[in-house]
Amino acid sequence: MNKLLRVKMGKTPSWSVEEMDAYAGMGGRNLTSKIIATEVPADCHALGPENKLVIAPGLLSGSAAAISGRLSVGCKSPLTGGIKESNAGGQAAQTMARLGYGAIVLEGEPEAGDLFKLVITKDEVKLEKADDLKGLGNYAVIDKLRVLHGEKAAYMSIGQAGEMKMASASIACTDMELHPTRHCGRGGVGAVMAAKGLKAIVFDDEGCGMRQPVDPEAFKAANKVFTKGLQNHSVTGQALPAYGTNVLANIINEAGGYPTNNFTTGQFPGVGRISGETQAELEEKRGGKATHGCHRGCVIQCSGIYNDKDGKYLTKQPEYETIWAHGANCGINDLDTIARLDRMDDDFGLDTIEMGATIAVAMEAGLAKFGDGEAAIRMVQEVGDGTPLGRILGAGCAVTAKALGIEKAPVVKGQAMPAYDPRPIQGIGVTYATSTQGADHTAGYAIATNILKVGGFVDPLKPQGQAELSRNLQIATAAIDSTGMCLFIAFAVLDQPETFQALIDLINAFYGLSLTADDVTALGKSVLTIERDFNKKAGFTKEDDRLPRYFRREKLAPHNVVFTVPDEELDEVFNW
Amino acid sequence: MNKLLRVKMGKTPSWSVEEMDAYAGMGGRNLTSKIIATEVPADCHALGPENKLVIAPGLLSGSAAAISGRLSVGCKSPLTGGIKESNAGGQAAQTMARLGYGAIVLEGEPEAGDLFKLVITKDEVKLEKADDLKGLGNYAVIDKLRVLHGEKAAYMSIGQAGEMKMASASIACTDMELHPTRHCGRGGVGAVMAAKGLKAIVFDDEGCGMRQPVDPEAFKAANKVFTKGLQNHSVTGQALPAYGTNVLANIINEAGGYPTNNFTTGQFPGVGRISGETQAELEEKRGGKATHGCHRGCVIQCSGIYNDKDGKYLTKQPEYETIWAHGANCGINDLDTIARLDRMDDDFGLDTIEMGATIAVAMEAGLAKFGDGEAAIRMVQEVGDGTPLGRILGAGCAVTAKALGIEKAPVVKGQAMPAYDPRPIQGIGVTYATSTQGADHTAGYAIATNILKVGGFVDPLKPQGQAELSRNLQIATAAIDSTGMCLFIAFAVLDQPETFQALIDLINAFYGLSLTADDVTALGKSVLTIERDFNKKAGFTKEDDRLPRYFRREKLAPHNVVFTVPDEELDEVFNW
Repeated sequence: MNKLLRVKMGKTPSWSVEEMDAYAGMGGRNLTSKIIATEVPADCHALGPENKLVIAPGLLSGSAAAISGRLSVGCKSPLTGGIKESNAGGQAAQTMARLGYGAIVLEGEPEAGDLFKLVITKDEVKLEKADDLKGLGNYAVIDKLRVLHGEKAAYMSIGQAGEMKMASASIACTDMELHPTRHCGRGGVGAVMAAKGLKAIVFDDEGCGMRQPVDPEAFKAANKVFTKGLQNHSVTGQALPAYGTNVLANIINEAGGYPTNNFTTGQFPGVGRISGETQAELEEKRGGKATHGCHRGCVIQCSGIYNDKDGKYLTKQPEYETIWAHGANCGINDLDTIARLDRMDDDFGLDTIEMGATIAVAMEAGLAKFGDGEAAIRMVQEVGDGTPLGRILGAGCAVTAKALGIEKAPVVKGQAMPAYDPRPIQGIGVTYATSTQGADHTAGYAIATNILKVGGFVDPLKPQGQAELSRNLQIATAAIDSTGMCLFIAFAVLDQPETFQALIDLINAFYGLSLTADDVTALGKSVLTIERDFNKKAGFTKEDDRLPRYFRREKLAPHNVVFTVPDEELDEVFNW
Repeated sequence: MNKLLRVKMGKTPSWSVEEMDAYAGMGGRNLTSKIIATEVPADCHALGPENKLVIAPGLLSGSAAAISGRLSVGCKSPLTGGIKESNAGGQAAQTMARLGYGAIVLEGEPEAGDLFKLVITKDEVKLEKADDLKGLGNYAVIDKLRVLHGEKAAYMSIGQAGEMKMASASIACTDMELHPTRHCGRGGVGAVMAAKGLKAIVFDDEGCGMRQPVDPEAFKAANKVFTKGLQNHSVTGQALPAYGTNVLANIINEAGGYPTNNFTTGQFPGVGRISGETQAELEEKRGGKATHGCHRGCVIQCSGIYNDKDGKYLTKQPEYETIWAHGANCGINDLDTIARLDRMDDDFGLDTIEMGATIAVAMEAGLAKFGDGEAAIRMVQEVGDGTPLGRILGAGCAVTAKALGIEKAPVVKGQAMPAYDPRPIQGIGVTYATSTQGADHTAGYAIATNILKVGGFVDPLKPQGQAELSRNLQIATAAIDSTGMCLFIAFAVLDQPETFQALIDLINAFYGLSLTADDVTALGKSVLTIERDFNKKAGFTKEDDRLPRYFRREKLAPHNVVFTVPDEELDEVFNW
């Protein structure tokens, strides 16, 4: 992972391989954010030639460390206008790391109409015209590429949404079955990949071995403790493998924080029909899978396979956020409809959270009735087709509300809120408001402590302690996002000191370091500081660290609460 | 003008008349900005219940002072997210002032679907349901209202664009012929009027006399000097009356700053076909008028009447900015096409500058070819019809670029640049960048000194002296915008010390004051400070005081220059 591949688009596209140099020892989000902050002018246009797209596996990706296959993609976001790190599972991170690349940096601007694929093998890098892939969805792209580049390669690609440079366009990574289902979903990173003229990347790591630790014995021992810790925790050892992330549906609904009909109430009457329990049963019944890993080396196995009524593969098991976004938030209570929408999003290359939130806004504006699944399918189809309505929706929730002239867009920094209402779960509201990424649950998952009572308990309905909770989680997350580890390790790491220590031991053994817990905290703070500085230069102020005012004005049933964390406390989240 | 009419929308709409109290002695932009800054939370949603719409005539409106009929409308802008003052001519300011109202403040939020008209006469105020006006364009609205409220009343109204809460929606004021052709165009003020549930305002000043000065003799004398000054200046005494504002087409084209095909070049080959000279000749030939006032009391007479081929009234003489926006900037060289677009904009209630700039962006994105007038007409029709494409375009230039995935949106603070390219005319670039209003030529009309050599000369191609030029003009403009005086008085005021003194004498004689030139400067600074503070609270930073980066990157022919005023100088514009 000492190589940095720099691809320069322009009249004559070219690429070069450099040593990591100034960026050595960095991985994942730490690396993407550092490169963006160093090399991209904060006031540039996200789709212009000055922006860059950085792809980076985590520090432990490509090694034998359990669940280390997360990939970070960074850029200036066309959705938020700020810095973006969007990460995904799938096979890309592991293969890219084994190929020895710490980062790929896409820069410049292609000639109009040019579209390329980048093929990386052990021995060479090729940048080839990809006209045959133009206009294809991710599934069709992979069908073509796997014939040429094989079943063992990993693939990244963009669908039609990316090619149209939509602000909700994602980048797909293939999973173990070569389905393009693991997405760097948020912030429009797919549009930036398109703006660099790249349709797909092929990672063929044939001939490359597993990355080897400096101290194999210590590494092996730490990995054992780490894995055991994950398996022993009730969330990662039981709930997630059994029901996937959608185990949360009943839990969050029960807590009154399951945003329904565009965040107008906190409980969805149809939750029983779309819950994780119902979903797992249906998947098993149809010969799909309720327990499955999104990449090799995963020991949690929270993903799954969703078959249609005829037992044929339709999509991966849709995540909790997807089922919420296309389900409860649009008043839709039918899993097959939601799974179809998930498949369409994956194929067109769209962020499922942004799309669901956007359709709900369109429903609020009167374009369809809440609960109308067929209308939702038609709308996503219009996005893929690039019709005028599709262009509105594809630009995301904030733009859709602006185009349709309505106030109630649940967004922060232009990015749609995910599946937790910030009024009855105030800790996540602090994360939404203050994250460098726009509204993003993964940036500081306060649900853990507010609702799941992981890492202690902070009363979700009260403002007290939420800022501190979010701060600590955001710091820890920024560090974890740099390791390549799946964020779900946080449950065990928060609750079990020995699992946290094992994580540090893994890094130390791999790199021959002697980091402490304080170093991990320092890393997290450093990443956040880099990102905050970029956003400041891009023009963000404390006014951008706010929820829309209506979250302070309109009470949410059943708890009938508004968001009450004071602005002053929001402004202290990054004062450490 | 000591009365403030406050209209509160809600379940049971109500209104009350107050004394001006804290706002006494203020008018126009000074008053609208002061009320917005005092009463509206800067972080509210522009279409939500916390925003207000303020309507205010200027200090001298309703008096015998020449050319004092400008009306200011203020709010938080749905287009820019900052404070907005949008002003227009027509008859509204004079009649409202004679009725004794210094300001109308619309606040709250109506019940869904409610639409009202506000009728103000000497003896009463009535707030009435206006269901019969729903969905009508401005021309049809006035046709209905004039039957009920007479030919002598003045009317303000919104068209379909306003009702759809589009961010480029304007508020129309009727002219002397009761055509709804004088628009508070910029910043989406029409959407805010709609968000307050108001379709129209009727000002019936029957029984109200001219507002009387404290010192009639001194007032009369000052008015004489003032009028003579305007008539003696070559711009206001000759060029504007003869050819209207479009006299600028040839001048700006000659200077290489006439933005063509979405700001890709600075000269338009078809300029001769759409110039002021050609237009005036055509208007006269068809029995229209090339010299005409937009309101009673105007001594410049820069407006006109544009008839169609059959000699029938089509629209008022389209302004320079309109002819540029729908003409050169879209590559369209046909005056009849442009006049039709102007008529459609006026009827739907749309900002012509924003619409032209937006259509050019749509053309750049490939929706039509530059020069395709029929396509432009179809697009504006879609805006009026509220089709999905119309919703994109109606949301303005910045949103359209975002929805269509292109970089080149010539906007500042989300508002489209008008008819002067900031690369070969760098002074106007400083105004675009730093104005509190978003890109707005009227905020500090550096064209005067850069090109017309009014108030001295600053070389338009060089960065030197532009910040100071723009600063002084912005200060003077903010003061003039508070008087009710048409901004075109600035040419004579800048060049003729006696005309400037006459303006001050007019105010002093009217109110019994003894203001000096320093007081006028202080007033301008005070208005700008109020506006800057509001924008800061709304989250604006120096990063918002920038042109899009491509104006520093891409050279504009024929001078092949980029914008070169340093950021540091932009940041000093408001340091006085």
